[in-house]
Amino acid sequence: MITLASDFGAPYPAAMRGVIASDCDARMVDITHQFPRQDVRTAAFWLREVLPYYPPAVHCAVVDPGVGTDRSALLVRAGEHALVGPDNGLLVPAARRLADAVELFEWSYDDPGSATFHGRDVFAPAAAAVHDVGVAAIESLDRATPTPEYVDLSFPEPTIDKPNGHAVGEVLVVDGFGNAITNVPGTVCASSVGGPIAVNGERIPFERSYAALDPGDRLVTVGSHGNLELAVNQGRGEDAFGVTTGTGVRFEW
Amino acid sequence: MITLASDFGAPYPAAMRGVIASDCDARMVDITHQFPRQDVRTAAFWLREVLPYYPPAVHCAVVDPGVGTDRSALLVRAGEHALVGPDNGLLVPAARRLADAVELFEWSYDDPGSATFHGRDVFAPAAAAVHDVGVAAIESLDRATPTPEYVDLSFPEPTIDKPNGHAVGEVLVVDGFGNAITNVPGTVCASSVGGPIAVNGERIPFERSYAALDPGDRLVTVGSHGNLELAVNQGRGEDAFGVTTGTGVRFEW
Amino acid sequence: MITLASDFGAPYPAAMRGVIASDCDARMVDITHQFPRQDVRTAAFWLREVLPYYPPAVHCAVVDPGVGTDRSALLVRAGEHALVGPDNGLLVPAARRLADAVELFEWSYDDPGSATFHGRDVFAPAAAAVHDVGVAAIESLDRATPTPEYVDLSFPEPTIDKPNGHAVGEVLVVDGFGNAITNVPGTVCASSVGGPIAVNGERIPFERSYAALDPGDRLVTVGSHGNLELAVNQGRGEDAFGVTTGTGVRFEW
Repeated sequence: MITLASDFGAPYPAAMRGVIASDCDARMVDITHQFPRQDVRTAAFWLREVLPYYPPAVHCAVVDPGVGTDRSALLVRAGEHALVGPDNGLLVPAARRLADAVELFEWSYDDPGSATFHGRDVFAPAAAAVHDVGVAAIESLDRATPTPEYVDLSFPEPTIDKPNGHAVGEVLVVDGFGNAITNVPGTVCASSVGGPIAVNGERIPFERSYAALDPGDRLVTVGSHGNLELAVNQGRGEDAFGVTTGTGVRFEW
Repeated sequence: MITLASDFGAPYPAAMRGVIASDCDARMVDITHQFPRQDVRTAAFWLREVLPYYPPAVHCAVVDPGVGTDRSALLVRAGEHALVGPDNGLLVPAARRLADAVELFEWSYDDPGSATFHGRDVFAPAAAAVHDVGVAAIESLDRATPTPEYVDLSFPEPTIDKPNGHAVGEVLVVDGFGNAITNVPGTVCASSVGGPIAVNGERIPFERSYAALDPGDRLVTVGSHGNLELAVNQGRGEDAFGVTTGTGVRFEW
Repeated sequence: MITLASDFGAPYPAAMRGVIASDCDARMVDITHQFPRQDVRTAAFWLREVLPYYPPAVHCAVVDPGVGTDRSALLVRAGEHALVGPDNGLLVPAARRLADAVELFEWSYDDPGSATFHGRDVFAPAAAAVHDVGVAAIESLDRATPTPEYVDLSFPEPTIDKPNGHAVGEVLVVDGFGNAITNVPGTVCASSVGGPIAVNGERIPFERSYAALDPGDRLVTVGSHGNLELAVNQGRGEDAFGVTTGTGVRFEW
């Protein structure tokens, strides 16, 4: 199986599917092609959250504002999975979530005619090649060279004071429903669910589910990613809390 | 085959695809993940219109504003099809369209860690389990218990006076083109196509196709769902007629 | 393999997938269903750019403002590929790109109950029928009749004066990133990459890649389609250059 993810919208991903269908017989599954444009961090977050639900596969992911510069093309082997994409940090959080130890390879490519669409001209053929030989045999590909260097990407860590019942973090991403997902794990205060929690000094209901309250009411919940999120039942938490990616959030419980 | 439908947008459906690909070898086909957010009625309408075109399959559909509350998870067997989703009415109109007699089962689930994403944690695994044993063998699944109780959902019925040539209904849904689809079946006045029809007292051309008129002209037509719809050639009927979901419409022919 | 492309958005394409899955065992791949609504030219451009990356397949494409009128349904054989869709020019540029010699067939269809959704009622069944017999055997289908007549569609040709270093063309389409793609092939001035180029009299950097400049800077580049495009690094060229489809552009290098 080859999964595909990008910020390309339409119709560019169709060319990637065509290249892969021409090069190999892999089953293709789309993750999404609606990642926010050129937002490597948000895409890296979602890949980390979603890819662990997949069986062993080759994951081809492209959010690539540096396309055509000298940034490298990267293969990452993470257990039975492989990730293929630009060396800009996009693949790193997912790879670390998929396996304790990961191996990195630089993928050498001839300068393609176009320097604007490596998704089609570099990464799709690379994913097909990895699929062909199998993830365990990446070394057998002439274009793959083990590399110790790569662009790292990590998410900011929250400051947690569990004994005193507070944590300071920030909004990592806002999802399509408007839920503002923070970097504070729900486990730090899970026993407080059902009572109130303070968000930047304001008391907010802390609930197991959006629908515990009336439509339009604000709440804090533990989202499907395991982190605290600022939400509104049938509304947009981002707007109601006045936060966006990077906004600092202090929780007290 | 397992089909997938939701109001999740992106990237949440990718986690459902991963769960299903991990659990079984079903072919997966997306219906859509762009249903209007938390609009159970509109999604129920489209499932009813679209699923009958499919070969026997397991249909996993999730529009679920009550996720995490005590609403049940439902399996419905409708002939050779099965439907899997929340017990909020979403599946009922499609099931009744697929088969004259339907059988309902409650799907019991352990409280998942997250109470916000049952699409991934409850319904996708349930769909994979049904696919594994086969639609005819739902009873063999320990988690499936026949149930006489479920949340019903039906669409309002129009008042039709065929001899006197009028009908009173309402707009059920507006599609992506802006066509306002009513609950009045086109069969009641099909012989009048080509002449005018009155819409809330105003004479409007009643045509077989959008392109029978000039771009921008308003018309009534029988849409692909078989009902009368208020449309504009290459424009948005919703805006031009000033209607939306629930607006009453009186037709006279 | 059957590929699907349309301007239908959601959920109408799901009905086409159901029909095809019911009629044959083809692998289905979506090109896109987000073509700009009823914009035959833009869709024809993208089909021409994308379909050549596919292995031999049946391509079912529907952008069809004339649905329900007396416009014909068309099959085109282009080498080992077949294209199926309305006879409004949509398929022609792609067919010519796929093969030097193409053969055209009119597909006769019974007047379907609905005259508003031939994607589901005419073209999807036609694509399944072609897939069933094979592209080489279109003649064996009773509904397919060779036809010398069809609606042509061609894109405007630029005026190129290579010795004197200028070309006059126009914007053909704007992609989802806002890049304004012209009809001037990059080959006419490829050796000038790295220097400036004049766009309607204004000097603009001519670069191999978007990221050669700072975010927000305007540039000209050779896009993945091979033509000159007006772009902004991490921004929208359409807006920054004040152009749209059809805008005349004079390049001097």
